[in-house]
Amino acid sequence: MSEFHYNNKKIYFEVHGEGQPLIILNGIMMSHFSWKIFLPHLTKDKQVILLDFIDQGFSDKAEGLSYKHELQVEVLKGLVDHLNLSNINLVGVSYGAQIALQFAMRFQEIVEHLMVFNVNSYTSPWLHDIGRAWVDAARTYNPSTYYNVTIPYIYSPKFYNENYQWMSKRRQLLNTVFDKPFLDAMIRLIESSEGYDIREQLNDITAKTLIVASDHDYITPLAETEYLHHHIKESDFVMLKECGHASMYERPNEFVALINGFMQKESRISIV
Amino acid sequence: MSEFHYNNKKIYFEVHGEGQPLIILNGIMMSHFSWKIFLPHLTKDKQVILLDFIDQGFSDKAEGLSYKHELQVEVLKGLVDHLNLSNINLVGVSYGAQIALQFAMRFQEIVEHLMVFNVNSYTSPWLHDIGRAWVDAARTYNPSTYYNVTIPYIYSPKFYNENYQWMSKRRQLLNTVFDKPFLDAMIRLIESSEGYDIREQLNDITAKTLIVASDHDYITPLAETEYLHHHIKESDFVMLKECGHASMYERPNEFVALINGFMQKESRISIV
Amino acid sequence: MSEFHYNNKKIYFEVHGEGQPLIILNGIMMSHFSWKIFLPHLTKDKQVILLDFIDQGFSDKAEGLSYKHELQVEVLKGLVDHLNLSNINLVGVSYGAQIALQFAMRFQEIVEHLMVFNVNSYTSPWLHDIGRAWVDAARTYNPSTYYNVTIPYIYSPKFYNENYQWMSKRRQLLNTVFDKPFLDAMIRLIESSEGYDIREQLNDITAKTLIVASDHDYITPLAETEYLHHHIKESDFVMLKECGHASMYERPNEFVALINGFMQKESRISIV
Amino acid sequence: MSEFHYNNKKIYFEVHGEGQPLIILNGIMMSHFSWKIFLPHLTKDKQVILLDFIDQGFSDKAEGLSYKHELQVEVLKGLVDHLNLSNINLVGVSYGAQIALQFAMRFQEIVEHLMVFNVNSYTSPWLHDIGRAWVDAARTYNPSTYYNVTIPYIYSPKFYNENYQWMSKRRQLLNTVFDKPFLDAMIRLIESSEGYDIREQLNDITAKTLIVASDHDYITPLAETEYLHHHIKESDFVMLKECGHASMYERPNEFVALINGFMQKESRISIV
Repeated sequence: MSEFHYNNKKIYFEVHGEGQPLIILNGIMMSHFSWKIFLPHLTKDKQVILLDFIDQGFSDKAEGLSYKHELQVEVLKGLVDHLNLSNINLVGVSYGAQIALQFAMRFQEIVEHLMVFNVNSYTSPWLHDIGRAWVDAARTYNPSTYYNVTIPYIYSPKFYNENYQWMSKRRQLLNTVFDKPFLDAMIRLIESSEGYDIREQLNDITAKTLIVASDHDYITPLAETEYLHHHIKESDFVMLKECGHASMYERPNEFVALINGFMQKESRISIV
Repeated sequence: MSEFHYNNKKIYFEVHGEGQPLIILNGIMMSHFSWKIFLPHLTKDKQVILLDFIDQGFSDKAEGLSYKHELQVEVLKGLVDHLNLSNINLVGVSYGAQIALQFAMRFQEIVEHLMVFNVNSYTSPWLHDIGRAWVDAARTYNPSTYYNVTIPYIYSPKFYNENYQWMSKRRQLLNTVFDKPFLDAMIRLIESSEGYDIREQLNDITAKTLIVASDHDYITPLAETEYLHHHIKESDFVMLKECGHASMYERPNEFVALINGFMQKESRISIV
Repeated sequence: MSEFHYNNKKIYFEVHGEGQPLIILNGIMMSHFSWKIFLPHLTKDKQVILLDFIDQGFSDKAEGLSYKHELQVEVLKGLVDHLNLSNINLVGVSYGAQIALQFAMRFQEIVEHLMVFNVNSYTSPWLHDIGRAWVDAARTYNPSTYYNVTIPYIYSPKFYNENYQWMSKRRQLLNTVFDKPFLDAMIRLIESSEGYDIREQLNDITAKTLIVASDHDYITPLAETEYLHHHIKESDFVMLKECGHASMYERPNEFVALINGFMQKESRISIV
Repeated sequence: MSEFHYNNKKIYFEVHGEGQPLIILNGIMMSHFSWKIFLPHLTKDKQVILLDFIDQGFSDKAEGLSYKHELQVEVLKGLVDHLNLSNINLVGVSYGAQIALQFAMRFQEIVEHLMVFNVNSYTSPWLHDIGRAWVDAARTYNPSTYYNVTIPYIYSPKFYNENYQWMSKRRQLLNTVFDKPFLDAMIRLIESSEGYDIREQLNDITAKTLIVASDHDYITPLAETEYLHHHIKESDFVMLKECGHASMYERPNEFVALINGFMQKESRISIV
């Protein structure tokens, strides 16, 4: 439960455990809270650092400000400097993975292992328009509308249907979370992704990279995540089958095993 | 440009060409207009009959009425009786396919060929909640919001991105279509699908059946359409790859070829 | 039951029905016999012409000769000339589809509709080595060995397992077919495919083209058939799910419907 | 470089490193040699134990003997007893995974983590007949024939084609390996898999289980590996995309990361 300041904004973070530093970067609607259940499984030999981006969780809101991913990359750099880390490992999911990729491109020497889940390399026109739907839904300031427009598509139909009771509880919880400040922050976060496009720069990523995709990802479709694998040199690639965009919720055990296993990678095995 | 009345509601239909009667049933947001471009390709040897369901196109709206699929099945039966047809062929896409399946179950002896595209066998909790998003979007009475919430997910990301200029023109067109009466009708149509579930009755379908699914269908996912194939006896099954829910727009040539070809089926070929 | 001669070799063919000429080109182990069960479903409005390539069925064997696909393309041209056809339609499966593609490239003005099933655009190193396995198996002159090495991989595991009784009958039948002359012919046919590579010439295909692939095709894998779709301009593409290389046997009804439907195509529908 | 005896047969094994015991069980054509390149990546905190089954590597051949999987399960039990292990972890690929599954069913209390790659739950008729092709190829005692019949299908077409130079070197190497004693042993190993069927007993597996499948696995197809996931309670499941049966060679980095990560699993994370 710590904080630092970036440009007069309070940035909230948490440090758990000891060992190699592993910074986990949230998806767009998440916060440090989202990782509670994962912590015991990741902190046995690692130091897990949770970060709330600007407009997330306990970090300051950016009312009146319009910004791009670049700002969150700077926030992450601020955290790394604040903690005086020279060598880090990054896990990012979705929005957090976009920031992780851009950080790894820009600060190549700092990132040892880069693990990105359910992410694309640019905001396609399709995703842009879906983002506008999210903004429009947020602007109704109706939590239920915002839930209906955003949440079902984050999960695979199979998971959502088989766990509908859990989803309904989640709806109740999110009903209280989706208040006006949250939704205004969401609009800024969504708009910060407009224009995102690193397709031509993927060659700049030199960290050991793990890319995880899901076959039923309806936000960052499989083919787009696979594109990253084909363009980041020597990246490893794993697919979760019968799984949607929110892979850490649908497949938490595989999520944790992939991180714990990939973190042990020291050098590339080459058979051929 | 003809009509008949069902329970004091005017029902609009069109008859094109001569030959075996082929009734085409619209998806939820479609109307007889949607088929203009397909007509020359389907009417060489067939009589194509276009039908606007209640709350679609030129048929009467059902203001103040709440109804289920059953009503549209009756409307279709009304058309068949009005035209004095004893033997019909049905093409249905999505909503229209749901009605077609239920008609074929109930009036087995009338339906010769049943061709359903991008359809499921029940409104799953997942799809129900997505339907609520559509209703919420309609209730904003903002055409742009309704477009953003409903249209992108009807197409595959690949098609939407590669044809973004066409999608933008479509947005302009739909902007004028999505007025209050249309959106109020949409709400009723969406709600008429709630509770839809024919999973236990698929064995009642005896028509020669063709089922077409798409791998990027984010409304009626592939596995759900495939379920129909596995449960309707002797159905044929074809998949369109790199295609979304609106398969007739993304793959019009395959759409037409499948209908024209399946209509020629007289008996089942059995190799084994 | 007719024949003509090409370079002193007797070439066997059959003509069935009246209408637009549709020439069906066999897969490597097939002959005109293989199409008996399909004929009633294709000849209602078309003239189906069956052709045994050199080293197939009732056509002459090419003992002592080594040849490439080119020869079979010439044989097909010989048939077209013999029958005085100026406008043909081609269906080809696997080997027959490779010949059909090359014929369509070379005699653009003659081919109206080109329908290819389960085919690739080159003999990859992988397929080359599998071809060598077939040759090695043929050289044992043991029908059972030849069956075991070639037949199971031609079917999807699902089909083979669910229809094992039929497969066993087929084994008995093929046991009598796989005699020395047949196997020697097979070796020449297999070797005629070595070096096949039309990847750079696909743009030369101007016929209306339908490409059909199967997801469990272990001879010409889906991605390789899809490559054709991506490189032949304006080709239509359909996938058969849970289906292997021998799609006409696993899915005869879809096979026939696709041909009958695509044959009706007169012009391209363009939505966008 | 150690050995013990099981029923007068010398059984070869190797122990590498210190830590939790991880026994790796070979695929049918493999031996302890196959794992050399993986050892440095698995032994940082684990004790890796390599075992040659009867008829593999340095273990005795079983000339004149006909046996089933059961024998190899006993051999594995012999090793566990010989080393006085009460708690083990098992990695198995293909044949080795079949033995691992059966061991875990029978000696539930001993197995902590069970990691199986590219495996099925029964020898289907399709795979049985492919097995007969392998036996027939072995009986020619021609190394090149045996290579052609077995090796290409073990890899994905993509990998085989992109690494054809490596495959050619491998062919040369295997040419010297595939001598008569090896091929006679192969025949016995293949025949030991005939009749394998644990479909009804999967519920007996209580170990923490990880199942890894490949989309281009043409020996143990994806759907069959997925069956294990659906029937072994609380198993984790990961898919390797664009990968064939020999996943440890095609994707060695993912292979190692999955083992290292899953070995850290202590308890199941449950979100819902």
